[in-house]
Amino acid sequence: MKKILKDYKAGKVDLAEVLDKIKLLPYEDLGFAKIDTHRALRKGFPETLFCQGKTTSQILTILESMAKRDHSILATKANKKIFTAVKKIYPEAEYNELAKTIVIKKEKLKPKKGRILVITAGTSDIPVAEEAIVTAELMGNTVEKAYDVGVAGVHRLFDIKDKIFEANVIIVIAGMEGALASIVGGLTASPVIAVPTSIGYGASFKGIAPLLTMMNTCAEGVVVVNIDNGFGAGYFASLINR
Amino acid sequence: MKKILKDYKAGKVDLAEVLDKIKLLPYEDLGFAKIDTHRALRKGFPETLFCQGKTTSQILTILESMAKRDHSILATKANKKIFTAVKKIYPEAEYNELAKTIVIKKEKLKPKKGRILVITAGTSDIPVAEEAIVTAELMGNTVEKAYDVGVAGVHRLFDIKDKIFEANVIIVIAGMEGALASIVGGLTASPVIAVPTSIGYGASFKGIAPLLTMMNTCAEGVVVVNIDNGFGAGYFASLINR
Amino acid sequence: MKKILKDYKAGKVDLAEVLDKIKLLPYEDLGFAKIDTHRALRKGFPETLFCQGKTTSQILTILESMAKRDHSILATKANKKIFTAVKKIYPEAEYNELAKTIVIKKEKLKPKKGRILVITAGTSDIPVAEEAIVTAELMGNTVEKAYDVGVAGVHRLFDIKDKIFEANVIIVIAGMEGALASIVGGLTASPVIAVPTSIGYGASFKGIAPLLTMMNTCAEGVVVVNIDNGFGAGYFASLINR
Amino acid sequence: MKKILKDYKAGKVDLAEVLDKIKLLPYEDLGFAKIDTHRALRKGFPETLFCQGKTTSQILTILESMAKRDHSILATKANKKIFTAVKKIYPEAEYNELAKTIVIKKEKLKPKKGRILVITAGTSDIPVAEEAIVTAELMGNTVEKAYDVGVAGVHRLFDIKDKIFEANVIIVIAGMEGALASIVGGLTASPVIAVPTSIGYGASFKGIAPLLTMMNTCAEGVVVVNIDNGFGAGYFASLINR
Amino acid sequence: MKKILKDYKAGKVDLAEVLDKIKLLPYEDLGFAKIDTHRALRKGFPETLFCQGKTTSQILTILESMAKRDHSILATKANKKIFTAVKKIYPEAEYNELAKTIVIKKEKLKPKKGRILVITAGTSDIPVAEEAIVTAELMGNTVEKAYDVGVAGVHRLFDIKDKIFEANVIIVIAGMEGALASIVGGLTASPVIAVPTSIGYGASFKGIAPLLTMMNTCAEGVVVVNIDNGFGAGYFASLINR
Amino acid sequence: MKKILKDYKAGKVDLAEVLDKIKLLPYEDLGFAKIDTHRALRKGFPETLFCQGKTTSQILTILESMAKRDHSILATKANKKIFTAVKKIYPEAEYNELAKTIVIKKEKLKPKKGRILVITAGTSDIPVAEEAIVTAELMGNTVEKAYDVGVAGVHRLFDIKDKIFEANVIIVIAGMEGALASIVGGLTASPVIAVPTSIGYGASFKGIAPLLTMMNTCAEGVVVVNIDNGFGAGYFASLINR
Amino acid sequence: MKKILKDYKAGKVDLAEVLDKIKLLPYEDLGFAKIDTHRALRKGFPETLFCQGKTTSQILTILESMAKRDHSILATKANKKIFTAVKKIYPEAEYNELAKTIVIKKEKLKPKKGRILVITAGTSDIPVAEEAIVTAELMGNTVEKAYDVGVAGVHRLFDIKDKIFEANVIIVIAGMEGALASIVGGLTASPVIAVPTSIGYGASFKGIAPLLTMMNTCAEGVVVVNIDNGFGAGYFASLINR
Amino acid sequence: MKKILKDYKAGKVDLAEVLDKIKLLPYEDLGFAKIDTHRALRKGFPETLFCQGKTTSQILTILESMAKRDHSILATKANKKIFTAVKKIYPEAEYNELAKTIVIKKEKLKPKKGRILVITAGTSDIPVAEEAIVTAELMGNTVEKAYDVGVAGVHRLFDIKDKIFEANVIIVIAGMEGALASIVGGLTASPVIAVPTSIGYGASFKGIAPLLTMMNTCAEGVVVVNIDNGFGAGYFASLINR
Repeated sequence: MKKILKDYKAGKVDLAEVLDKIKLLPYEDLGFAKIDTHRALRKGFPETLFCQGKTTSQILTILESMAKRDHSILATKANKKIFTAVKKIYPEAEYNELAKTIVIKKEKLKPKKGRILVITAGTSDIPVAEEAIVTAELMGNTVEKAYDVGVAGVHRLFDIKDKIFEANVIIVIAGMEGALASIVGGLTASPVIAVPTSIGYGASFKGIAPLLTMMNTCAEGVVVVNIDNGFGAGYFASLINR
Repeated sequence: MKKILKDYKAGKVDLAEVLDKIKLLPYEDLGFAKIDTHRALRKGFPETLFCQGKTTSQILTILESMAKRDHSILATKANKKIFTAVKKIYPEAEYNELAKTIVIKKEKLKPKKGRILVITAGTSDIPVAEEAIVTAELMGNTVEKAYDVGVAGVHRLFDIKDKIFEANVIIVIAGMEGALASIVGGLTASPVIAVPTSIGYGASFKGIAPLLTMMNTCAEGVVVVNIDNGFGAGYFASLINR
Repeated sequence: MKKILKDYKAGKVDLAEVLDKIKLLPYEDLGFAKIDTHRALRKGFPETLFCQGKTTSQILTILESMAKRDHSILATKANKKIFTAVKKIYPEAEYNELAKTIVIKKEKLKPKKGRILVITAGTSDIPVAEEAIVTAELMGNTVEKAYDVGVAGVHRLFDIKDKIFEANVIIVIAGMEGALASIVGGLTASPVIAVPTSIGYGASFKGIAPLLTMMNTCAEGVVVVNIDNGFGAGYFASLINR
Repeated sequence: MKKILKDYKAGKVDLAEVLDKIKLLPYEDLGFAKIDTHRALRKGFPETLFCQGKTTSQILTILESMAKRDHSILATKANKKIFTAVKKIYPEAEYNELAKTIVIKKEKLKPKKGRILVITAGTSDIPVAEEAIVTAELMGNTVEKAYDVGVAGVHRLFDIKDKIFEANVIIVIAGMEGALASIVGGLTASPVIAVPTSIGYGASFKGIAPLLTMMNTCAEGVVVVNIDNGFGAGYFASLINR
Repeated sequence: MKKILKDYKAGKVDLAEVLDKIKLLPYEDLGFAKIDTHRALRKGFPETLFCQGKTTSQILTILESMAKRDHSILATKANKKIFTAVKKIYPEAEYNELAKTIVIKKEKLKPKKGRILVITAGTSDIPVAEEAIVTAELMGNTVEKAYDVGVAGVHRLFDIKDKIFEANVIIVIAGMEGALASIVGGLTASPVIAVPTSIGYGASFKGIAPLLTMMNTCAEGVVVVNIDNGFGAGYFASLINR
Repeated sequence: MKKILKDYKAGKVDLAEVLDKIKLLPYEDLGFAKIDTHRALRKGFPETLFCQGKTTSQILTILESMAKRDHSILATKANKKIFTAVKKIYPEAEYNELAKTIVIKKEKLKPKKGRILVITAGTSDIPVAEEAIVTAELMGNTVEKAYDVGVAGVHRLFDIKDKIFEANVIIVIAGMEGALASIVGGLTASPVIAVPTSIGYGASFKGIAPLLTMMNTCAEGVVVVNIDNGFGAGYFASLINR
Repeated sequence: MKKILKDYKAGKVDLAEVLDKIKLLPYEDLGFAKIDTHRALRKGFPETLFCQGKTTSQILTILESMAKRDHSILATKANKKIFTAVKKIYPEAEYNELAKTIVIKKEKLKPKKGRILVITAGTSDIPVAEEAIVTAELMGNTVEKAYDVGVAGVHRLFDIKDKIFEANVIIVIAGMEGALASIVGGLTASPVIAVPTSIGYGASFKGIAPLLTMMNTCAEGVVVVNIDNGFGAGYFASLINR
Repeated sequence: MKKILKDYKAGKVDLAEVLDKIKLLPYEDLGFAKIDTHRALRKGFPETLFCQGKTTSQILTILESMAKRDHSILATKANKKIFTAVKKIYPEAEYNELAKTIVIKKEKLKPKKGRILVITAGTSDIPVAEEAIVTAELMGNTVEKAYDVGVAGVHRLFDIKDKIFEANVIIVIAGMEGALASIVGGLTASPVIAVPTSIGYGASFKGIAPLLTMMNTCAEGVVVVNIDNGFGAGYFASLINR
């Protein structure tokens, strides 16, 4: 299928043909969930399994369906109890405790040229950063990171200016005030993906404050994803990384 | 300067050299505003003039400073009264009445290969779409558009599926419910930039409803910019268009 | 009583007579709760017992009062501890663990002709869907379901287009972005009842985001009930199902 | 086409046939708007023209496209200036100044049997009520109305108890506290559609207060549409009226 | 002191004298809390002890200070653990488990003539009602109650119309939609104190919905106190009861 | 009728009799509004005419209905244009320009003994205060006022301590921070009615800030009415004034 | 009086004496406003006249009262119409059109040693900055300013680093994202007063976004005043400037 | 370094020299956190360790880095489990259980002349007050406190008028209504720092109510820090204390 899409891009087959094939591609219906078996083709990545709100038994059934195919699998927001259950069946599964991600690697993607840089404002933003990194790396990206860069200590930011200038895409993760995205956006000509986090207290209101800050950024070239959505940032970064 | 940055990317000069030069680059201080004369270099584009909240006299002074250099100028959120004043001094200025943009073209950028597609959910979202288009075109992009695609009439969406599959970057602009971004995001493997608009009534609360919808999208590969921020979407689309 | 209401509809008795009778109909006053003994007549259904915020002992006393009559009983938002206590006294009570409903079936209603279709956007919306289904089935409806239909995978939606075209009433249940209601509303000429759910994270704000999305739908023929109110959706669907 | 849908309902043709025909049905693309020429078939009603946010010239062009067909046309949120322009071209157009609706009647629908009752809490809710009534009447319904019924004067409500008991569907329109929907919902076994209005002052917050009241109603059989959405209520009422 | 205030009301002493005395009245400073020893005089009631946010040891020290005087003591929002500790030292302390109040009765106030009626919309509003009743009774009022009166079952309300017409002051306690206050306010010429409760789910937003409903009431003679503030309602009711 | 209610209070007639009479009392139905002709009896006051959201012609028709009876009439939120139209027909109508009230005096009520004190925090809260005063005076109360008392200048407050100690009921009107209600509530043993106002800027959010302050007051004996609801405060104050 | 306060600070007189005198100090009661004649003494500054919400005639009466004394007068939020009226009576009055302030200078205060620096993020924040400057200068401070410093162009900030290091107090004024306060706070050891502004569009929500950003700042030494409150910032800066 | 900054203030060295040195000052990069080793110099205080959101192991590693230098260390929002772990390694660490602070004292700062007064409205605001006091004392200030001063009992406030008049800086800490800051601000000529707290119930909305009250204060000389931010208040108070 990957072939047919490439053929299409190259003009070898026409759209009608492609669409016909895509329509025929099945997904597996588990009753409580539908697994896109051709999603890896259409989007370059298997369907991620968002674990929150699902029972362990539902998760295992979904994984069973996914595991029939040859693509890597990424489960997010997975607590340790879930991982223990998964590990029994898929001993090759890897757990990132900070990110709360489970990865079952299948295919190895050719690494992309450009680098993605993941910056956090504070130490407590690291779990969201790790989720972004796990996602981007699984999609074939080289990722660098710089944690606890803050905004009050601008000199810390300047010490990573090399990394900033060299990155092809930058993910900025910040809670509380969320100002870091604007400053990084002002320093770089590369696209910046901002992720507000729900960590904090008082008037941060579970991420509303940094979300609004990032939305209102005066820096050009900054876009925003949902609060705590490290996966979304990593995924989008991979999409636009060359 | 463009040269030096390219040299740096190519590894010919080291970062210290680049930074030294950049530090030396002046900006013009008009008292009430500071014009980044080297911004075009650093970010590939002249500083945009956001007209809202500025007096006509301030706008003219800023334009005078900008016009000394060789880069195109883009003024956004400019009402007709402002344009009339600008036109007297810069007869080559062009006004897009829907977008409320003034453009003074100077340099002609080499067109990029990839296409940007701008889709609106309704007719009343067109002004924001036009702002995005003016911005992206000025930055050297080829832009296609599809207006009033809605979400309730899915067949309308399918009629532009060719445009969707061929676009390199997609901007989706929607008010009220803002659901179009998710559906387009589910159809394409290209990055999608979602722009909520403040047009609507009742519980759309001046754009809060579509902003939240877009933030919470279950489609991967979708990011969000500020309410009514057509410029930001066009700018970011250009950054990631190849 | 059912007879008198029908007589009234048929013009056989006048309103004054009906009202007099209704006024005379007792309800049982338990001190902490009042049980409408004639509610089943007036609304075609016994008073549902909303368990949240009531003690187990209050619930048992209310059930005792309800059980004196011949109508089926539906208790919602009932945790397992409550069910265990109820089961001891009413061995015929059935528990739906996902829906958190207890049903004590008494009368068997004649099934209605039209079908109700219950669609969820994700797997984690299923508990609310099950509450709607239990309610609608108990009221004599035939219910079909389609879970995890999403909005990002439009092809999943198209695979249930038969069900959609054949349904007399459709209930759409979605958290996070809540966009599914609009798309289904655009495909069908049947009435759609949208239920936002509180499941999600980040900027879904416990159901505010899908509530606003559904409120602002551009699709005609869509109405909204309270966040997580599966019961209300099932009840209303039954009212308008023929 | 109406025929084919009926045939389908009756089982005479299969779904594939229907869908094929529907896919072939054109809509007219005006550039800034797309007119669903087959919408009247699919949904039993021509596409409504929501005037807010559109220029008079856009509105006239859309009307021109719609007027080619044989269905009645309904334009909502249309100010008097728009009507004057429309009237010149379509002398048969009728304006409801309170509702701000323009109607161009073409076909005459067979009246439905059931009655729709529209109740407002106050005098200032009348414009929204009129929009609902214009919509429902154009769709072939018989509509009764009762204005300024209040909630503080329960005796007013009891004087329309005949109308309430006889109505097949009830629309309740209320601003400020919005409590009327619950009380009517408690009196009737018919479905109730609640419309919050933005009229009021202080803590009504442009309709948020009645929206929340209606959402949280303890009466069964009540659903909610967007603030000030008289059209949506009238449309839905017609859908479920028999 | 009570005497001097009455003398003042009667014009026997002048204000300066009164104020001088009041200024001299001590309060006991416990470091972490200050106990108004003359509050009972000034306000006709001892300072209530709001337990939430205080340690058990702080509560005991405050009670010790209060207990030196001859006024009854009311501790609110007190959990069972606190009561157990209090009971050991003050065996005469009484606990109302629903209201979460501890009462140590000292003086017996002469009962007032007028009756206070406390009405709740639902069963789960009873704890707040009990707090109001404990407060009002301790202040010498005769209190009647009617629980689970609802708004959807207006006939329930009519069965307590005698109580409503006879009450001198009415407290209406309701969560979710909070509409009951308006209806009661419309039936009576007596003052109504409305208390929103945080009990509920979905769009009741921990009491915001009923708070707004009550604020926007169209019934005259209705005032509102804080969410769940049964004590405040009982206190104010006592102030205006004759 | 007043007589029968008094007889009832005195126990001379029973409730059934009273209710029967009340049920028979007509109200006049003007189509767009219903005028409670017996409201003056039931509530001790004619129905107030809230002018906002009504056309001048509607207002005149309502007044015509009201003027047939012998009770005074109060129209609130009436702009000068409305008054001019009213004055032509009712030359005895009086306008309070600050309060935006029209009064047509008919009956003269026997003055009550107790005094009502109306205090504002600032000068710009005066319009709301005047509405409260017009209302309370029309209902037979003696009203004193103290404007611009502030909270930052506590000495200003102390200079009106005589008025505060002598008042039977106190209305406190404040925008921005709304703290005055708590301080007055702490000084007096009389009931306090707090009115938040929408006057202010910045984070006062059109009255939300003082509304929340007043809701959360730590002073006992304070209740709250809607933002800018001077009428409601004056009405309630009259109800509880002796 | 200034003398007595100084004497007190120096320990020459005791507190009781001071308070006695202060109590005796009159303020002028204009009915609609109370003018603190001794405020200049107590707070080192005459009462500022906040013009919004006051009539021109009220303003003139207040000024007349203030002008009897020897202190300078500052009227804020004064539009040009007000100034024209004031100028006729007080020809020495000066108007700052950007700040919308009227100043009538009387006394000349000895300039303080430390400098106050006022920084704005954008050009449209200047009006709020000017209000702060007028206030601080009238109170005897030397004020420097730096406008349009932004946050996206960090190099602009570095060019004013001398001013930042030399300032004794810094006022940072920013709308939209409000991030500038954090960065300045991280660079300086001097206290920073942050002022959010209501200028902006989209998700800045009239100043809520920068207010939250500033509240959540991770930089130490930053405090916040109300949205658009330039006066408050200038006043506080003067209080803490040495 | 302290010397060089003082030299700079005294004009002995020029800015360039200072900045060069500061640039060279290292910070220690722990991977997950960066420790400003020169922060004590730049800001007069070591970097505070905000424990919330950090693991115990991260906290210990950060402390190890900080402990290499000679400055005191302050860890905030530290629960007892963290303290136990810290105590094992740093036996000199002191824990304030109310404030949840850990202090490791190293240097002893020369006490400042001026006094800081910390006032709380209630007993439950004490934890935030203690955090402010620990911070301010560690920075060399003499701090006085007055707890449970309330706003409803103004006489309590007057009993601490000596403390108020003598304080150089005042911190006011209040939840619920937050009105105390305005009243204190009106009594004193010293700067007031207001801290809203999240303690409370009902419409205090976790600190939003007192935050808005304090933001909207009509008292001059009052600024606000984040909800529950006792540290920030103590820090800022120390900055402006002389």
